[in-house]
Amino acid sequence: MGLGSDGTVGANKQAIMIIGNQTDQKVQAYFDYDSKKSGGITMSHLRFGKSSIKSTYLVEHADYVACHNQSYVNKYDIVSDLKPGGIFVLNCVWSDEELETHLPAKYKKVIAEKNIQFYTINAVQIAEEIGLGNRINMVMQGAFFKLINILPEEEFVKALKDAATYSYNKKGDKVVQMNHDAIDKGVRRIHKVEVPPEWKNAKETEEENEVKEPDFIKDIMRPMEQQKGHKLPVSAFKGREDGTFPSGSTAYEKRGIAVNVPEWIEENCIQCNQCSYICPHAVIRPFLLNDSELEKAPKSFETIKAAGKGVEGLHFRIQISPMDCTGCGNCADICPAKDKALVMNPIATQVEEQVENWKFASCDVGYKTDLALGKSFKDSQFKEPLMEFSGACAGCGETPYIKLITQLFGERMMIANATGCSSIWGASAPSTAYTTNKEGKGPAWANSLFEDNAEFGFGMYLASKQMRKNIEENILKLVEKTIEPHVKELLVDWVNYKEDGEVSKAASEKLMTELENYKSADSEVMYLIDQIKQRSDYLVKRSHWIIGGDGWAYDIGYGGVDQVMASGEDINILVFDTEVYSNTGGQASKSTPTAAVAKFASSGKKAGKKDLGRMMMTYGNVYVAQVGIHADNNQLIKAVREAENYKGPSIIIAYAPCISHGIREGMGRSMETIKKAVKAGYWHLYRYNPDLKKEGKNPFILDSKEPTESFRDFIMGQVRYSSLARTFPDVAEELFNKAEENAKERYETYKTLASL
Amino acid sequence: MGLGSDGTVGANKQAIMIIGNQTDQKVQAYFDYDSKKSGGITMSHLRFGKSSIKSTYLVEHADYVACHNQSYVNKYDIVSDLKPGGIFVLNCVWSDEELETHLPAKYKKVIAEKNIQFYTINAVQIAEEIGLGNRINMVMQGAFFKLINILPEEEFVKALKDAATYSYNKKGDKVVQMNHDAIDKGVRRIHKVEVPPEWKNAKETEEENEVKEPDFIKDIMRPMEQQKGHKLPVSAFKGREDGTFPSGSTAYEKRGIAVNVPEWIEENCIQCNQCSYICPHAVIRPFLLNDSELEKAPKSFETIKAAGKGVEGLHFRIQISPMDCTGCGNCADICPAKDKALVMNPIATQVEEQVENWKFASCDVGYKTDLALGKSFKDSQFKEPLMEFSGACAGCGETPYIKLITQLFGERMMIANATGCSSIWGASAPSTAYTTNKEGKGPAWANSLFEDNAEFGFGMYLASKQMRKNIEENILKLVEKTIEPHVKELLVDWVNYKEDGEVSKAASEKLMTELENYKSADSEVMYLIDQIKQRSDYLVKRSHWIIGGDGWAYDIGYGGVDQVMASGEDINILVFDTEVYSNTGGQASKSTPTAAVAKFASSGKKAGKKDLGRMMMTYGNVYVAQVGIHADNNQLIKAVREAENYKGPSIIIAYAPCISHGIREGMGRSMETIKKAVKAGYWHLYRYNPDLKKEGKNPFILDSKEPTESFRDFIMGQVRYSSLARTFPDVAEELFNKAEENAKERYETYKTLASL
Repeated sequence: MGLGSDGTVGANKQAIMIIGNQTDQKVQAYFDYDSKKSGGITMSHLRFGKSSIKSTYLVEHADYVACHNQSYVNKYDIVSDLKPGGIFVLNCVWSDEELETHLPAKYKKVIAEKNIQFYTINAVQIAEEIGLGNRINMVMQGAFFKLINILPEEEFVKALKDAATYSYNKKGDKVVQMNHDAIDKGVRRIHKVEVPPEWKNAKETEEENEVKEPDFIKDIMRPMEQQKGHKLPVSAFKGREDGTFPSGSTAYEKRGIAVNVPEWIEENCIQCNQCSYICPHAVIRPFLLNDSELEKAPKSFETIKAAGKGVEGLHFRIQISPMDCTGCGNCADICPAKDKALVMNPIATQVEEQVENWKFASCDVGYKTDLALGKSFKDSQFKEPLMEFSGACAGCGETPYIKLITQLFGERMMIANATGCSSIWGASAPSTAYTTNKEGKGPAWANSLFEDNAEFGFGMYLASKQMRKNIEENILKLVEKTIEPHVKELLVDWVNYKEDGEVSKAASEKLMTELENYKSADSEVMYLIDQIKQRSDYLVKRSHWIIGGDGWAYDIGYGGVDQVMASGEDINILVFDTEVYSNTGGQASKSTPTAAVAKFASSGKKAGKKDLGRMMMTYGNVYVAQVGIHADNNQLIKAVREAENYKGPSIIIAYAPCISHGIREGMGRSMETIKKAVKAGYWHLYRYNPDLKKEGKNPFILDSKEPTESFRDFIMGQVRYSSLARTFPDVAEELFNKAEENAKERYETYKTLASL
Repeated sequence: MGLGSDGTVGANKQAIMIIGNQTDQKVQAYFDYDSKKSGGITMSHLRFGKSSIKSTYLVEHADYVACHNQSYVNKYDIVSDLKPGGIFVLNCVWSDEELETHLPAKYKKVIAEKNIQFYTINAVQIAEEIGLGNRINMVMQGAFFKLINILPEEEFVKALKDAATYSYNKKGDKVVQMNHDAIDKGVRRIHKVEVPPEWKNAKETEEENEVKEPDFIKDIMRPMEQQKGHKLPVSAFKGREDGTFPSGSTAYEKRGIAVNVPEWIEENCIQCNQCSYICPHAVIRPFLLNDSELEKAPKSFETIKAAGKGVEGLHFRIQISPMDCTGCGNCADICPAKDKALVMNPIATQVEEQVENWKFASCDVGYKTDLALGKSFKDSQFKEPLMEFSGACAGCGETPYIKLITQLFGERMMIANATGCSSIWGASAPSTAYTTNKEGKGPAWANSLFEDNAEFGFGMYLASKQMRKNIEENILKLVEKTIEPHVKELLVDWVNYKEDGEVSKAASEKLMTELENYKSADSEVMYLIDQIKQRSDYLVKRSHWIIGGDGWAYDIGYGGVDQVMASGEDINILVFDTEVYSNTGGQASKSTPTAAVAKFASSGKKAGKKDLGRMMMTYGNVYVAQVGIHADNNQLIKAVREAENYKGPSIIIAYAPCISHGIREGMGRSMETIKKAVKAGYWHLYRYNPDLKKEGKNPFILDSKEPTESFRDFIMGQVRYSSLARTFPDVAEELFNKAEENAKERYETYKTLASL
């Protein structure tokens, strides 16, 4: 088994490795690490036993510590838990001289005082040389066994390679060979640092960083980030007894996990904003500056003249937040400019400038909310995303969808989130990716169980509906009283427009301004105004969303999805369709298509993919859409707007590539994969809008064109399919054909629906 | 609130009645009774309090006991729990003289010894005079208040009438007036019996009835029936620790709850067998006799010459079991003969003869299993129903469907039953309506939770599949050994036909006969044969059914229904669609159509009826049918056979009229209502058979013709709709129109599907 080495949610694994089997005694090394916050730190005791050692424990006197990410030395206290004389391995690009500059004083002190054996290795470079991209796990394992010296080199290298062959056999010979190379190079390229004795006297030369941070960040999030949450006293949570955590805290993480980040080449940019639209992590955004803002910009903050309607006279810049970027590379991959306007370059070469530029853009410039922007996907990107910097896997196919929705409706959204990937990247305690705008408005978010999320979100909706009904009753009473005519007009306006998201916002603001200081001798009038003020939070129409993955929507939570859609109420569902239970390790769901390999379907799924959308269409009054970001950006934004605007239930099913698919080109092409899925007739885009029926039109619009690319090529680009040909060659061909037939049959059905 | 007075499941209610409110003291009478086994017995203490008395308790020293059903005096010990000097009221047709004959000696003795005040009343006659049919509850309440004498007559009559007005207002003025009349007549027509002092010495003149009954009936069922189950020691259940109860026990109940039962007029009979087909209680059946059987028939056992293919030379008789009949009258209602061949007549006039005839027909004649019968619904009725005499409401619309299925596949059926009406009438401890044929074969039945029944049944299926796979493996091994050629042939036959219900039965029987005494010197051969023999119960292909109501299938259990249908496995679902949660008191389900009044939809349901069938069709490989017994008898039996025969998942949605619909013509016309539902375009019949696709045909067959009768008239014939016009006249018209539109739209959708 391999070790995960990235800092993302997906790598939450623990590994036990059998490396030898002599005289009936299994020699095992046990690795204990948490991948979410300290992903890429290996801490180990060496334990030996005749049978597998399965218990986990908190390592506080480690024999061996490896730090797989150099930026962690500035965030975590890693070396304190080493035994005197223990081994510390740091994966970094630093030479011994550079170490002097970059290694914090407290590290130097501990290393020297405890007489730690200190090694460095440039595993990232090695992995890139071999072709493993950023997968450094086998390199680090090679180094590990070299250093712990419990078996002769020849022996452990053979054992490790055998294990790698076993693990990666399904992925092909090339992958196996790359892993073998990684082991060899890990063994060879480890470098011992001669620890200068004066490190014992090392002192922090920098000033103590006196950052102004909110209490929650300082008192709760930082200790938890440093793996010291268990030391927090109960009293630290005073005032948070209801379990509510503040939003927007991922912005404080600055995980810095990217190796390469995009660099903007302004002269190539065509200002299409697609990079921002598809960025899974909301780390790349277009900013618009006026002249006076531009004057205050940092030196390297280049801009170009903004082009397009509504942005005349402004300056345009694509700005990235390097410390929040995961380096997935999708932005550069999909950049449609003739000469790429985004190029992936090592973070080290640009981080300082871009951190400063990001701070300037996001804090000092911000988002121009008063522009007369259109409804295009391009214009949507000038709005602030209210979901950012989540812990989702690099290149996650889920996050861009909800990010877009928060840009459109975030400040009045309520979200019920089913347990699953989206609840994990949405809010992993202590940090929350949903955030607020400058006015402090953003999505209210809560996570419920896997099985009851739709009902949970329906409860939110009903409560909100009830509150607004109460407001309306009081307003109608107030209108009957003697009040000033212009206030009466505002009251009537509110009632008329209360179900329109944008208009109700304006109407509510005007009304509240008047009511705030309204005086009347009539005590009943004042009582009613007071009642309305108490519920002022509910004046603006809320945008209710129930979200989750396919495991939830197609399977375990489907009963609730169906119940809520059947209610006829004005509520929206968004399904992140990864076609598999992603968060729990890749079990087949009813969304998994024929031939895909998944847990419980290891010989390829036999049954076809459930057509959730068509099931929901049978209600006749449910808005249904299937979408694919990047496949058709305009279709997506149209669907989202129509769904939200529809005065009834709506469901959007969004194709979401996932690490569990094993995309051969890597998750840096996850967005391009969506486009390919549509072109190959694998995924179909459509909208079913019941409002069209009232106009005498066919409610079903097929947005997918006839497939132009090969279905088989598409599925063979993903390990979830291609592995079947190796593991079950006898059934693979038949299942691949069936998968293609099913997809075609589905497209034909949609064509029929579109032609009725 | 009213008292239920029938002996059926539907009346499982408890009533608290507020009859006066003087000097701030509410005067209340509390009634405590169990309706399933002693339905129609009122036992009461009188309790008074300032607020509602809500606790229930077991009455053992009653002030007042009323027996609403005269036949109970032969079954239950009702008077023993009366206080000395208490009141006993018996609803009966008996005069004082007849009482001498009919009242059991033990009753007479207790009444005389305890100095009981004994009254009779002919409430059935009164209710019929008024037009209340068999609804005697208000009559009995009038009598109750008259006798307990806690309020002046004028006062309690007014209070009772006010209560009746409140309760029945929704059902119209006529219903209110009938209930007022019932109260008046209950007060006036009560008759005091002068108890002869010699009753103290009354002795049982009849011989002690030494009936031979199975242990379970004698030791467990009889005590429980007599409300003495709580006195059974734990040891009574020795040998039944796993909770399995024997089937076929309802046949021992002989509840005798009917007032009128059908009388067969042989000269009018056209031998269509429709009466048997639709009988909800399996109490009316056609029997075929040969000459020698006829010779032994009782005197009144008239027959006619059997007509039709396959029954040549036999004698035909329609025989009813009067003691099991509920008297619903559907058989006589739907009899299509020019002059009715069935007429409802008082049970008293025919009970003795027909009990004898039934015993002869069902025990001595039985069912001719070797006839070469066809596949028509008529011929299906010569097969033995393996679900009989359930505790379902008289005229229940659910029972005929499953009864038919047991006639076709009962001896190899396994049933998983969702909690709900069908689990209650299917098996209310201690009695089970599912039964076995002479060979001891019948449905294996178990009830699971509301929410997991589909999964539960799927588990049964998987277990059975696994067992049969094991048999197959052993047979294939056996075939490779040296065995006698004719046995080898039988083994191969079994493998070839194992998935065919009827053929696998024959193949299994032949094979087992050979294997039973097979001898071989080869120990491996003997081992394999032994393994097969151990699993011989699984040789015949099982017919797996998962059944339940719409509350289960459309709502709470829908997630599981969907999951099982998506599996692609060979399993069948039957939905009893009453369009409402029947068993729990009439809550709206997603099957409830627009405008229907139900709990949680008291102002008429706004949303439309969910199209469960169309949802399941989206899978493409699920057999789906909507059926309506009596609306199209051939379509039903075709659908059932096709579904069972289909080598994949199937679902049948069956329209089931229910007491909760408030059919104005009464439940005696429940079957005719199904026919009307189809003619009015309210319910649509169709079959979606995926097998037809393989033949290049359209899999969807619309079996319903264009509606020819008025939709509005149809719904107005049911209180669930008509009451809306009175309670919410402002919305009723709109909702009625919407209901009609929805039904039309649905029919149009089906027409489109049929034309593709």
